[in-house]
Amino acid sequence: MSYPKLDSKVLQNLKDVAQKLRIHSITSTQAAKSGHPTSCASLAEIITVLFFQQMRLNLKHPRDPSSDRLILSKGHAAPILYAAWAEAGLFPVEELRNLRKVDSDLEGHPTPRLSFIDVGTGSLGQGISVAAGMAYVGKYMDKADYRTYVLVGDGESAEGAVWESLHFAGHYCLDNLCVIFDMNKFFCSDIATEMEVYRERLDAFGFNALVLNGHDIDELVKAFQNAANTKGKPTALLARTIKGKDFLGVEGIDEMHGQPLGKRAEAAIKHLQMMIANPNVRLTPKKLGKCGHAPEVNINNIMLCSPPNYRLGDSVAPRLAYGTALAKIAADNSRVIALDGDTKNSTYADKMRNAFPERFIECFVAQQNLVGVAVGATCRRRTVAFVSTYATFFTRAFDQIRMGAISHTNVNFAGSHCGCSIGEDGPSQMGLEDIAMFRSIPGSTVFYPTDAVSTERAVELAANTNGVCFIRTTYPNTTVIYNNDEVFAVGLGKVVRQKPSDEVLLIGAGVTLYECLAAAERLEEDCITARVIDPFTVKPLDVRLIVKHGKLCKGRIVVVEDHYQQGGLGEAVLSALADYRNFVVKHLYVPTVPRSGPPAVLLDMFGISSRNIVKATLAIMKK
Amino acid sequence: MSYPKLDSKVLQNLKDVAQKLRIHSITSTQAAKSGHPTSCASLAEIITVLFFQQMRLNLKHPRDPSSDRLILSKGHAAPILYAAWAEAGLFPVEELRNLRKVDSDLEGHPTPRLSFIDVGTGSLGQGISVAAGMAYVGKYMDKADYRTYVLVGDGESAEGAVWESLHFAGHYCLDNLCVIFDMNKFFCSDIATEMEVYRERLDAFGFNALVLNGHDIDELVKAFQNAANTKGKPTALLARTIKGKDFLGVEGIDEMHGQPLGKRAEAAIKHLQMMIANPNVRLTPKKLGKCGHAPEVNINNIMLCSPPNYRLGDSVAPRLAYGTALAKIAADNSRVIALDGDTKNSTYADKMRNAFPERFIECFVAQQNLVGVAVGATCRRRTVAFVSTYATFFTRAFDQIRMGAISHTNVNFAGSHCGCSIGEDGPSQMGLEDIAMFRSIPGSTVFYPTDAVSTERAVELAANTNGVCFIRTTYPNTTVIYNNDEVFAVGLGKVVRQKPSDEVLLIGAGVTLYECLAAAERLEEDCITARVIDPFTVKPLDVRLIVKHGKLCKGRIVVVEDHYQQGGLGEAVLSALADYRNFVVKHLYVPTVPRSGPPAVLLDMFGISSRNIVKATLAIMKK
Repeated sequence: MSYPKLDSKVLQNLKDVAQKLRIHSITSTQAAKSGHPTSCASLAEIITVLFFQQMRLNLKHPRDPSSDRLILSKGHAAPILYAAWAEAGLFPVEELRNLRKVDSDLEGHPTPRLSFIDVGTGSLGQGISVAAGMAYVGKYMDKADYRTYVLVGDGESAEGAVWESLHFAGHYCLDNLCVIFDMNKFFCSDIATEMEVYRERLDAFGFNALVLNGHDIDELVKAFQNAANTKGKPTALLARTIKGKDFLGVEGIDEMHGQPLGKRAEAAIKHLQMMIANPNVRLTPKKLGKCGHAPEVNINNIMLCSPPNYRLGDSVAPRLAYGTALAKIAADNSRVIALDGDTKNSTYADKMRNAFPERFIECFVAQQNLVGVAVGATCRRRTVAFVSTYATFFTRAFDQIRMGAISHTNVNFAGSHCGCSIGEDGPSQMGLEDIAMFRSIPGSTVFYPTDAVSTERAVELAANTNGVCFIRTTYPNTTVIYNNDEVFAVGLGKVVRQKPSDEVLLIGAGVTLYECLAAAERLEEDCITARVIDPFTVKPLDVRLIVKHGKLCKGRIVVVEDHYQQGGLGEAVLSALADYRNFVVKHLYVPTVPRSGPPAVLLDMFGISSRNIVKATLAIMKK
Repeated sequence: MSYPKLDSKVLQNLKDVAQKLRIHSITSTQAAKSGHPTSCASLAEIITVLFFQQMRLNLKHPRDPSSDRLILSKGHAAPILYAAWAEAGLFPVEELRNLRKVDSDLEGHPTPRLSFIDVGTGSLGQGISVAAGMAYVGKYMDKADYRTYVLVGDGESAEGAVWESLHFAGHYCLDNLCVIFDMNKFFCSDIATEMEVYRERLDAFGFNALVLNGHDIDELVKAFQNAANTKGKPTALLARTIKGKDFLGVEGIDEMHGQPLGKRAEAAIKHLQMMIANPNVRLTPKKLGKCGHAPEVNINNIMLCSPPNYRLGDSVAPRLAYGTALAKIAADNSRVIALDGDTKNSTYADKMRNAFPERFIECFVAQQNLVGVAVGATCRRRTVAFVSTYATFFTRAFDQIRMGAISHTNVNFAGSHCGCSIGEDGPSQMGLEDIAMFRSIPGSTVFYPTDAVSTERAVELAANTNGVCFIRTTYPNTTVIYNNDEVFAVGLGKVVRQKPSDEVLLIGAGVTLYECLAAAERLEEDCITARVIDPFTVKPLDVRLIVKHGKLCKGRIVVVEDHYQQGGLGEAVLSALADYRNFVVKHLYVPTVPRSGPPAVLLDMFGISSRNIVKATLAIMKK
């Protein structure tokens, strides 16, 4: 395909803007006394063409669901992104000098504190996943015209997450996605060979891969048009660029990476100013088209389409109830989607897939991309996403989940196969640190429902709760202990057994709640009555309930969990009680790496069975 | 290259052994009533050729440093691996029937509880990294003849970690590494095209990639010989196989994945028995060669080659002291190695690289592979590895670290850039969940040294401590508070300020220890004297010291950390006090996602400065 050349005036204007962006990148990092101006410089023409020639933007509403998306995966180049938005007219260019100041939202790496940022970046290699999630929704759900661009550094392309997401984008033919690699690092002396290796890799991953000079505006325009016209596969632009391009005395000097220009700034700025033909040039981004908009959606007040339907005493796996509930909320709201990492038969996400195949995204055995795609899919409130896999395999995506919190994401996670109660598969498959991980995510909510009824309600609540939600779904069948009309809420626990004579409070969740109940039965034979609490959410924990009943039980608490000691339910309880004198807590947990064996045998062997609880209770009664 | 065909008798014997392995895979999973026999069946010829035709093994000492290595990345195929070792004569085949039993080490997925397993597998996509670490050491450090093989499933090749490690192996020309992809899954109807896509990808990642029929013993032998003769690049065998191969009525049926054969077992076994020419066939693996052995090494009692050399009051960044100490222990022991993920200038691992470039492994921006390579490099006690990057970027490798504990690894991790005290770079770069993560690793040791002297000692101690060690190295300069001859030990804290009149105990580490000291100064103006403890290790925590001094301070404790609330120093202290009534703890932590800004401003803004400590102390004095 051939494309008409740019008019020479238009071309000069774009060149001028690119140099202005370079100047802003210097002045803002000079003011901040830190930052990565040379990493900005390599992007100047790319960013200029994107903002002032390619992307359709809405300056009044930067997160317009119908506007084009841009993810800066190489987040350390934030200053030039900020500069582009300022030059586009979103805010005064003077504000750029507040870069990295504590009272400015122009942070060192982009975060959605800024109206024009969809997700936080700065942990490398995550941007393509997020962009792929946006593009997937754009193509298959919104069926809208917006395009998604993502700027990636060559250094970060070593990240496996990059290849997970490239595979995903190629597999799902995301032709509305354009990945731009800013190839400003020289790995070897032979740059042409290096570029060819990248081209081959991207080609083999299903991309329309184009090599070009990233400082040549004409080439860039052509390449973006080629991308827009390429159907059935995503495009990757492999842009050869130079770090510190056009920075006098700095260009191409690797030692200047990650540093402001300091004394060299003045001369560099003067040199750039001399290269500008029209210092007063102002360009504006393209506006949105008249059609091809994203549909309006409503993702509020999502409900189970029918209430839980179990009988007390039924034996049902909470993970199965998860699948049931997921299909039910999906029936209620057409924007509920599910994603899974090739474990749908085990997590029971397949119940959603069977009911609504068009809203199920198979992400294969690639948990980082699984999470990144979900984060992207939920951006601009397009969808409500539920992501499932084995609880322990979310450790693979801890960094993505962490960045999700920085990105203000509302993604919901469901982790099955928690604890040693999964049995014979052995420790590699057991989630024993998942609560610790999800509790450490700022603003997260951690559900640990015990039976099928509470699991269904956890799913319903998670769909409507802001921030990262995690639902720990138990593997074996558990007995239904709640009525179908029992009301659950985030941060409210349940007293499931009590007598006025109670002298000790037992706290458990999932399998250990039943062990607590069995222990209470057994203790009663020794004339010790025990109260039992099901916390329902580990975070926020029902502090009021635990303190109140703990006090009524003489300050004696036994907390039992199918999880390692650190960061789980036990330490959550201890944190809740920190401020109070006169409590004594015995914490039962899995003390070491478990092994393969029958679940009941493992619970006992690793110290969290009813027998162990009875023993701990008898000991604590002396305190 | 052409290779002589196998003698027909030899060929038949190998075929017979392959069928015997299939039978064992059925009988063991039948006895266990769970497992993945069909995933074993696809590997039967590959495993047979490896064990009885290719690999040099020492049955008396399966972890002989000079013998060939085999990693089963697709750990769910464990039964056939166990069967091969049994057929080789390591243990009686009857034991295979104890698969997955609680009193047998033949677990659902392999773990090093077994003498012939180097690392635990079962979390997919990690095997190649580990194998690459072994191969790197074999080629560049041991300079020995042993070869490393790794068996990978096609499903797990979606994991980004796989591509990180393939890139690493190609980049470092690991021609002693052979990766075998067991391609038993049909993604599309056109298997030939699918294989070609894989071949192209591996080719582009620098591999000698060969497509072959994984059930054809002749082809396998040729391919392994080709691999052994290919210099300068690693080899990948893309073996087309069939799930459940030769299992009558089961072969190729996807629904049988992950299930024992049940009622179909008997007929399948009969059918396999009929295919065996000589039921009494016994083959033995090749023995080690006479030369090309790995050198003997001693990795015990590693010491700083010279003691810390600072003056009290010096201002030194603990991360810099980390680099200094690393170079010092490397000078003491030639088997100390360092690995970093393209952050060596910031973590100061470059001090080691400058001193001993041949023992520094640059792993690029690919943290999963970084950790996997380190785990592999330390196997069979070949090296003592220190892995560094920003503390928060270890979240990227949480799953690898978790599996490291299952693998009994002794890798040491150093995380720089912890907490909001890094300042302007913003939250994406701040480690605020790293202590929670490393505390949750079974058997781990978590060092949080405060000054340069204690940091150097932490490095020395970590080198000699079993299990996963984590050293949290502080970013800004801190004041040297210990004498160069101060003695440190794992699990022993230090009282750094005390008076008989102390009424409250302050606990801090890193930057917050200095905030505690400043707060104590300030409180003294109000006639409140405070004791201050530096825990040195967060895990194990010096419970005795904290309880003793906490009691002496009227049970009042303020603990302050540059970390989120969950799973860090604060909850470690609370866990330590769980068993005691009559303590009250005020925990100061970073309560939410921080932002860019000057470190001192952020400490105050996020509630962990001396001012906040004074306020908390005044409040706790009323309790």
